Amino acid sequence: MFNIAAAQSGGPTSAINASLEGIFSQAEKHPEVDNIYGSINGIEGVLHNNFVDLRKILTCQHDKELLRKTPSTALGSCRYKLKDYEEDDSAYKTILKSFEDNNIKAFFYIGGNDSMDTVMKLNNYFRRTGSDIKVIGVPKTIDNDVMITDHTPGFGSAAKYVATSMQEIIRDSRVYSIPSVTIVEIMGRDAGWLTASTCVLRANLEPAPHMIYLPEVEFSIEKFLDDIREAQKKYKAVIIAVSEGISFSDEKYSMSGFSSELTDAFGHKYLSGVGKYLEKIVGAKIGCKVRSIELNVMQRCSAHIASLTDINESSMAGAAAVEAALTNGESGKMMTFNRISSHPYKIEIASHDIADIANQVKYFPVEWITAEHNNVTNDALDYFLPLIQGEVETEYLNGIPVHFRLNL
Amino acid sequence: MFNIAAAQSGGPTSAINASLEGIFSQAEKHPEVDNIYGSINGIEGVLHNNFVDLRKILTCQHDKELLRKTPSTALGSCRYKLKDYEEDDSAYKTILKSFEDNNIKAFFYIGGNDSMDTVMKLNNYFRRTGSDIKVIGVPKTIDNDVMITDHTPGFGSAAKYVATSMQEIIRDSRVYSIPSVTIVEIMGRDAGWLTASTCVLRANLEPAPHMIYLPEVEFSIEKFLDDIREAQKKYKAVIIAVSEGISFSDEKYSMSGFSSELTDAFGHKYLSGVGKYLEKIVGAKIGCKVRSIELNVMQRCSAHIASLTDINESSMAGAAAVEAALTNGESGKMMTFNRISSHPYKIEIASHDIADIANQVKYFPVEWITAEHNNVTNDALDYFLPLIQGEVETEYLNGIPVHFRLNL
Repeated sequence: MFNIAAAQSGGPTSAINASLEGIFSQAEKHPEVDNIYGSINGIEGVLHNNFVDLRKILTCQHDKELLRKTPSTALGSCRYKLKDYEEDDSAYKTILKSFEDNNIKAFFYIGGNDSMDTVMKLNNYFRRTGSDIKVIGVPKTIDNDVMITDHTPGFGSAAKYVATSMQEIIRDSRVYSIPSVTIVEIMGRDAGWLTASTCVLRANLEPAPHMIYLPEVEFSIEKFLDDIREAQKKYKAVIIAVSEGISFSDEKYSMSGFSSELTDAFGHKYLSGVGKYLEKIVGAKIGCKVRSIELNVMQRCSAHIASLTDINESSMAGAAAVEAALTNGESGKMMTFNRISSHPYKIEIASHDIADIANQVKYFPVEWITAEHNNVTNDALDYFLPLIQGEVETEYLNGIPVHFRLNL
Repeated sequence: MFNIAAAQSGGPTSAINASLEGIFSQAEKHPEVDNIYGSINGIEGVLHNNFVDLRKILTCQHDKELLRKTPSTALGSCRYKLKDYEEDDSAYKTILKSFEDNNIKAFFYIGGNDSMDTVMKLNNYFRRTGSDIKVIGVPKTIDNDVMITDHTPGFGSAAKYVATSMQEIIRDSRVYSIPSVTIVEIMGRDAGWLTASTCVLRANLEPAPHMIYLPEVEFSIEKFLDDIREAQKKYKAVIIAVSEGISFSDEKYSMSGFSSELTDAFGHKYLSGVGKYLEKIVGAKIGCKVRSIELNVMQRCSAHIASLTDINESSMAGAAAVEAALTNGESGKMMTFNRISSHPYKIEIASHDIADIANQVKYFPVEWITAEHNNVTNDALDYFLPLIQGEVETEYLNGIPVHFRLNL
């Protein structure tokens, strides 16, 4: 008998709790597993010996069902970066001791690219020190920018929310008889996946968004304004999807208006307000009614419109991680989705060496961006469409979705 | 045999098409009604003789079902203010001629306070000129600020979206171990109804939002900062709901940061960014992690999470308007909801003289605001809760809600 632990890290998604549920439900099937711990606030919980006993928290099928449908991280999160082992191994020693003291033989870390850095470093440390503790990463990010895997848990739900909201914004934008431009700013610091996914509306013959701008190619304000003028010949209400991380090529337009100097623990800049910035430029240069809309954190937590495909796959990825560690004895791996086909949609779950994944970014394919750099091709549509299929049956109480709350 | 016409005006809601459906479905039951016209872009369609034949557009039960579930105005909207009849009656003459030319004997105007001004003026003009054309207003606004009626169509759906999103934002805000403040800016230029409605989360024992600030009472920055400091003693992540229209009492804090000088046709100022403004102040004065979120137009168009109570009532209000005009011969009236009881929830639909309604604002009751001016009482909870009950069965195609599109 031994114990295992799971933790959640990085920015929340609508599916990160589904992966936790998958880990828990699969671990329950293993008679050799005694306690199933949840580490509070990611790896910080391991460092501070702050664990909860998930068997006492998830006491019935209904608890697990609610957890699957609850956005954000039930166990809390962190943005903690482990130093290099060679530089400073104090945190590693504390983590190893914490695992040993609690007889934890396998650790499952649900997170994005930065969290996979932690998985890699811990695995390397445990192998060097001769420990047999297994470390497996379960990907999650609405950014969909993790290497090797076809897509990431959490992305499909974010894409479904963004498409649904975009379509509603389109309805809202078309009501007046005067020309207008609506700019919708969508999350994606480095990679344009989520912004690009707004192309799914095409499947229902919706021509908007009329333009889609991604960080993967250079962004020219002059070209942007020309694109709008061209679109205005056809459409009274021009609707634009723009990634928060677009890279400006025009030197005369200062970035200082929307890029703050703040950086997070991983050295990433906090971006905000590219939509508001472009709104001002369109207002000044084109002069029509213009507004910008930031979908903000709702993109990553709107579980009430989650993709059933995403929630199911996220749970399956968690369950597969348990099998990888406990049945196959793997460590230093991340679970991946391999797409077998899009028509019909079919994936298989595998594991892959974390060294090929950590600290990298999977960009949106440039070959799926149109020559004009202002939209995406139908290859993108084929890729995205399966990921947003199906709806989760939301449980309501007093007209409001019921969430699983740990009340930390 | 004669014709009737309906039009939609003002800002979109998730329920304004349900009222149009109600008018259409009820008019279909009247054998004396020949054509049921839709005027494109509100009263502008009447002025420019721009009508569609709704019998040709809504050809089956499914069309009507989809229309009920589609946000925004299927017929387009306008912000057109009729001049005083005494000053300039040219538009009135054009409208009367348009109605006479098209044999339109009853006109149904779905809109908010400003649209009710149009209903009143047209009715007065028709009575003075001896015309027998009936004009009936059907209220709609997410602001819930229309006099006489207990609540307005469109409000319940907006409140359900705001409560659902607020709860998701609460989940999202609680994940990190550091103290934080999250400010959610909610629509409501003059009246705080929608912001106040976030108190419904209490019904599910959710303590957040911890503070609620409304335009009906003065807003002091110093008191706001003290409220935050006090809340931080109890809560790691402090969540605040703030109305876009709060009125500052502290002279030293300039309003210029967030109030633009632009005004619409009715002389209303365009507000934006009070949340962002407060975010900056909290960052400077308290220094913790702080962010602001603007729910933006999603508040008025997120039909995918509409209140079934709201959609049903909105349709019923449209149907009742047809009965008021065609069966009871009424004109110059607006349809109203009278609440019979909250437990169990029961309303009746009536009509009321438009002169008591047009150009006025129904404010959130000051007696439902706590003495501290930073929250609302449980009387507000009792009032709001019935309005967000029930969910509309959304139809999906390719994972995306299906909308009724007129493709104007």
